[in-house]
Amino acid sequence: MARVVQKFGGTSLADIEHIRRAAQRAVAEVKAGNEVAVVVSAMAGTTDQLVAWVDEIAGRDDSAEYDSVVSTGEQISAGLFALAVESLGVPARSWMGWQVPVATEGGHGRARIQKINAADVVGDMEKGTIPVLAGFQGIGPDRRVTTFGRGGSDTSAVALASALKADRCDIFTDVEGVFTADPRIVATARKLDRITYEEMLELASQGAKVLQTRSVALAMKHRVRLQVLSSFLDTPGTLVVGEEEIVEQEIVSGIAYSRDEAKITLLKVPDRPGVAAGIFGPLADADINVDMIVQNVSEDGSATDLTFTVTRNDFGRAQEVIEANKKSLNYQSLILDSQVAKVSVIGVGMRSHAGVAQRMFQTLSEKGINIQVISTSEIKVSVLIAEEYTELALRALHTAYGLDAA
Amino acid sequence: MARVVQKFGGTSLADIEHIRRAAQRAVAEVKAGNEVAVVVSAMAGTTDQLVAWVDEIAGRDDSAEYDSVVSTGEQISAGLFALAVESLGVPARSWMGWQVPVATEGGHGRARIQKINAADVVGDMEKGTIPVLAGFQGIGPDRRVTTFGRGGSDTSAVALASALKADRCDIFTDVEGVFTADPRIVATARKLDRITYEEMLELASQGAKVLQTRSVALAMKHRVRLQVLSSFLDTPGTLVVGEEEIVEQEIVSGIAYSRDEAKITLLKVPDRPGVAAGIFGPLADADINVDMIVQNVSEDGSATDLTFTVTRNDFGRAQEVIEANKKSLNYQSLILDSQVAKVSVIGVGMRSHAGVAQRMFQTLSEKGINIQVISTSEIKVSVLIAEEYTELALRALHTAYGLDAA
Repeated sequence: MARVVQKFGGTSLADIEHIRRAAQRAVAEVKAGNEVAVVVSAMAGTTDQLVAWVDEIAGRDDSAEYDSVVSTGEQISAGLFALAVESLGVPARSWMGWQVPVATEGGHGRARIQKINAADVVGDMEKGTIPVLAGFQGIGPDRRVTTFGRGGSDTSAVALASALKADRCDIFTDVEGVFTADPRIVATARKLDRITYEEMLELASQGAKVLQTRSVALAMKHRVRLQVLSSFLDTPGTLVVGEEEIVEQEIVSGIAYSRDEAKITLLKVPDRPGVAAGIFGPLADADINVDMIVQNVSEDGSATDLTFTVTRNDFGRAQEVIEANKKSLNYQSLILDSQVAKVSVIGVGMRSHAGVAQRMFQTLSEKGINIQVISTSEIKVSVLIAEEYTELALRALHTAYGLDAA
Repeated sequence: MARVVQKFGGTSLADIEHIRRAAQRAVAEVKAGNEVAVVVSAMAGTTDQLVAWVDEIAGRDDSAEYDSVVSTGEQISAGLFALAVESLGVPARSWMGWQVPVATEGGHGRARIQKINAADVVGDMEKGTIPVLAGFQGIGPDRRVTTFGRGGSDTSAVALASALKADRCDIFTDVEGVFTADPRIVATARKLDRITYEEMLELASQGAKVLQTRSVALAMKHRVRLQVLSSFLDTPGTLVVGEEEIVEQEIVSGIAYSRDEAKITLLKVPDRPGVAAGIFGPLADADINVDMIVQNVSEDGSATDLTFTVTRNDFGRAQEVIEANKKSLNYQSLILDSQVAKVSVIGVGMRSHAGVAQRMFQTLSEKGINIQVISTSEIKVSVLIAEEYTELALRALHTAYGLDAA
């Protein structure tokens, strides 16, 4: 007997017929002799409507009222899911965050899970009742409803799986699993059977929107074995596990990309100590996340050019911050470019293999693609290129690293 | 300083613009120096959608999951209402039934309020924060969400007003108040300034769907002064109060009608003790509410005809029950008629005035309208007539009792 947490996303719960089919998957696990707990997102579209209403009145997403309103989406789908399970002849009951309780800290809109008291949920499972947890929500110290930010139901599922010491946490979604590259761009992309937490973290943060980054970090921390799989197919998905579970490690596991990039270059900044702090301090104060940074060596030691990237959402604000500090920063002028994309090669195997970055630079060069910025981590090499070359770069790199399906 | 509860129905909260205007009414009371608590229904249409989803899966309205799902409608409007008040510069916070708490008993779907612990709500009001209670919902002994049946937000408002010892409970709706008759039928109908609880109860149960019957009974029990008024106009509505507050009492306050009637006549039932019990026992067992009953005296003491009415919703089932018991009831045949309507003349003044019923019979007779069944209470005379005469009867009676607007 295994203990399994199943999480269903909004597209897997788009309407009553979808909910019924998802409920059948939970019932099938019980019939196979396993213990099952379910975590649900809101039905597709519901959260958007709720957020739109709040925006129309208040334009804020960090209030207790925002949380109270948007958390209803998961409350609805949890109740409907429990009814669907019961209609299949298996007992079930819904659990809202405040009922479990899922205790949170860190205020509203982006609360963090502090502790899940899973005793009652375990009680349900032990007597053959399927507990259905409304994802994305908890209860704060003031006894008000909190939420975890968009995609937070993945985090609910991983936290519950950890609290239940579950053998596996299945994340049902509208894709078959994690691919070596976006299959809509790279026709030869393959589904990966296994991938490490570290690689999945890099993939998630590089724009492969299969799992929320935070839920992967939580799974890694608590060693929760994740499976990403399709709710529409009956095939195994991709297991996200520790490195020790992967016997034969590929050097490169996948190629990711993100178009959510914008580049700002400060020309002729005085080359003296403290200039970087002078630029990035005000950006941090404005809550703007800077991703890649490159600073050239100045020719004569007096002035240099400095380039950094932010998300396109922060682009305008970042520009304002830099321009507001023009006097103290003392740069000559700005170059702004939002027509850029980031392409990344990811794999834990590159720790022990030299030449991975070199092959990337070589491949892009052969295709005539200019590299604007480079950044690396232990298991990743990322480059910034002109956006129009994105698809070309992805396909070329996919082939170059031997990832194409046979 | 007065303490006021304001309740807004679904049509008063149809969209964000409506919610904003309703919020302005709450803010206006605070600016006038009063203490205000608000109770909200779900936005128009929301509850229907939620009920439809539950029906599609389960077709049941008495489960804990039904309550958990449908109660989200009020949770959404309470949060949005609080945000709308705050956007007008006055502090506000939403309260769900489980947070107050509104303790209930009697299971799910049709729970009854046991006790409202209003201490925290009072705390809000005393510091100038407008508490916004999600109507229609409470929490059961098992710490699960319960609901009160359709229209239950009126009950929430009256119960809260009672717990707060409020000076008034304003029920904002889409009509101007309580009328002497349905103004869509009787053009000369007048809005009543005041009406007694007893009259309002009769009006509500006779089909004037302005207030939920149960909320009126609760208001009468706890002497909560109700006002029914339009959320779209700035005119006073109708006060529903005790008889002692009405100085000059009209003999007849209003004429009500209901088309939700169906008539069953059993021909030639043996005229012996126990026959009525034999008929109405099985109907009660089948949870069918019988309204009017008339039994004629038999000519020769051996057989009689017996007529009763039920709602049209129960008509088919009532017929089945009677036919299933044909052997023991030993009647000759059935006459079924759903083309009937009930017209009622209502007024506490008729307690002290004779001739009210006689005027009704006279008026209907002059218009050639046959009376099929009669039933009376202390403050009401009801007759069953052929449905096609409904409008004619209403207008004639409205004139006959001197209710026409000048």
